[in-house]
Amino acid sequence: MSGRYTVLTGGVGGAKLVDGLYRLLPANSLTAIVNAGDDFRHFGLPISPDIDTLLYTLSGKSNQKLGWGREGETWSFMEAVRSLGGEDWFNLGDGDLALHVMRGMALDAGETLSAVTARFAAAWGLALNVVPMTNDAVATWVESDEGPLPFQRYFVERQCQPKVKSVSFDGAATARPAPGVIEAIRSADAVLIAPSNPWLSVDPILAVPGIRAALADCAGPVIAVSPLVDGKAVKGPTAKLMSELGLAISNDTIGGHYADFLNGLIVHNDDPASDSVAVARTDTMMRNPTDRERVARAALEYAKKLRK
Amino acid sequence: MSGRYTVLTGGVGGAKLVDGLYRLLPANSLTAIVNAGDDFRHFGLPISPDIDTLLYTLSGKSNQKLGWGREGETWSFMEAVRSLGGEDWFNLGDGDLALHVMRGMALDAGETLSAVTARFAAAWGLALNVVPMTNDAVATWVESDEGPLPFQRYFVERQCQPKVKSVSFDGAATARPAPGVIEAIRSADAVLIAPSNPWLSVDPILAVPGIRAALADCAGPVIAVSPLVDGKAVKGPTAKLMSELGLAISNDTIGGHYADFLNGLIVHNDDPASDSVAVARTDTMMRNPTDRERVARAALEYAKKLRK
Repeated sequence: MSGRYTVLTGGVGGAKLVDGLYRLLPANSLTAIVNAGDDFRHFGLPISPDIDTLLYTLSGKSNQKLGWGREGETWSFMEAVRSLGGEDWFNLGDGDLALHVMRGMALDAGETLSAVTARFAAAWGLALNVVPMTNDAVATWVESDEGPLPFQRYFVERQCQPKVKSVSFDGAATARPAPGVIEAIRSADAVLIAPSNPWLSVDPILAVPGIRAALADCAGPVIAVSPLVDGKAVKGPTAKLMSELGLAISNDTIGGHYADFLNGLIVHNDDPASDSVAVARTDTMMRNPTDRERVARAALEYAKKLRK
Repeated sequence: MSGRYTVLTGGVGGAKLVDGLYRLLPANSLTAIVNAGDDFRHFGLPISPDIDTLLYTLSGKSNQKLGWGREGETWSFMEAVRSLGGEDWFNLGDGDLALHVMRGMALDAGETLSAVTARFAAAWGLALNVVPMTNDAVATWVESDEGPLPFQRYFVERQCQPKVKSVSFDGAATARPAPGVIEAIRSADAVLIAPSNPWLSVDPILAVPGIRAALADCAGPVIAVSPLVDGKAVKGPTAKLMSELGLAISNDTIGGHYADFLNGLIVHNDDPASDSVAVARTDTMMRNPTDRERVARAALEYAKKLRK
């Protein structure tokens, strides 16, 4: 597989597809445009959960058992925070803190989020571009039956229990795509949409002015991997959220959601297809590196087919 | 022992005397005025080494083996910092980070250093006043044969190896004593000067306008515990520094240094006395809690005698 590829991704599930693509493709041929709508300040430190999950996953540092954070992590910081009466609804591992502290120092000194992210990726020997969707502040908010909630309060503190009425992206209207984002989409041999939550993880990226238009205009095909498996979400609140938003939990809904730019959808085995877009099929469950490569290969081969 | 006592202290050695006093005295009868000249920002976080050493020591959290930091500390943060190419000359333990991160958040929100410090002490159940000398920025600088060095660069990074020509306290001239400092000195039944380095750890406190005058004016006696044992410094650069400053390494020099306000000096066993001030004697080595109580008791008894 050669060429230049771009993938739009959120957190854990998306990182698995990016990992599969990174394993298959030659060095420096992949750009990952990462959701930054989950980013927030906690203890005054700038946390970028999806960027960090991707960096940990690609560098082999992710915690397989927890499903988030770092392998071999220690928790002395949180223990001391609790002893001082500090907030403990959001767990920050000791090693994980290094990224937030060093990012905070860099941002406060005027470095951009994309520059810091590239520096971290290079320090860990990663041969791909990891780019936040924007260097401007965009914050995902969930309008719920308990009122408006910042994303992490909904997702981590409230464990996705409140019923979602709508999702919005504060600051998106005036945000600019990070340097290289539009070019990486327009010039890609194919753009892939990772099986991240379309409403919570991919929509924030699409909300940055210029990105949706670039996807509609890009030379190569745009292919999404459906987050649904056997008609259910593999992980996280996707199915619950779709239901609360009054949407059918189906690949038809997923395909329709991306209709203005999508050329193909990868669906799980014999799950029902989508009326709004062509589909290709593979086992989309990604339990291990072999699975990740299989799904990545299916997406790249489907892209090649659609390019003809 | 009843009454109200105030102690001026620096880091590790001073914290041992404060611990001894805290063990002997009734709850809430002790005020510790702590050197903040060693404070600095590192990774953007405000580090207050002497305050934290005192909090760790009094709450039974200090690392006996290292002689600094927390018992049972982990080091995942520093490991991750190194993997990202960050500075590693100053070690920050994972649990220790909680104080710096929470202090940074509080200071950035406009809380004073003394308010944060009181909050931390209360959270750990400490029944004494722990007060920084000032809430204003005062930074100890060492003028050395390698040029001017901020205190931590001299002390930690260069391990006190440069030869010291003079010591200065940047910002001291316009600093105000923290709330309660002057009152705690004036109203004390006795003021004790801990066996901390007079030039590096006690002088920054004395450099804050108003503190030296309060010591000279205070009702009770002012008693110092000499940092010299058998004519040598127990720990740290005291003797080396005295020699570089052209001073005799003797209790006479120590007594003379505090001459304008000192009423008595506690010296080690049969070490030579001081020409400039009356002395009392005890074994001043503090290896364990019993030692700490013995030295504290000697200081308090000497205070009682001098009050008569």
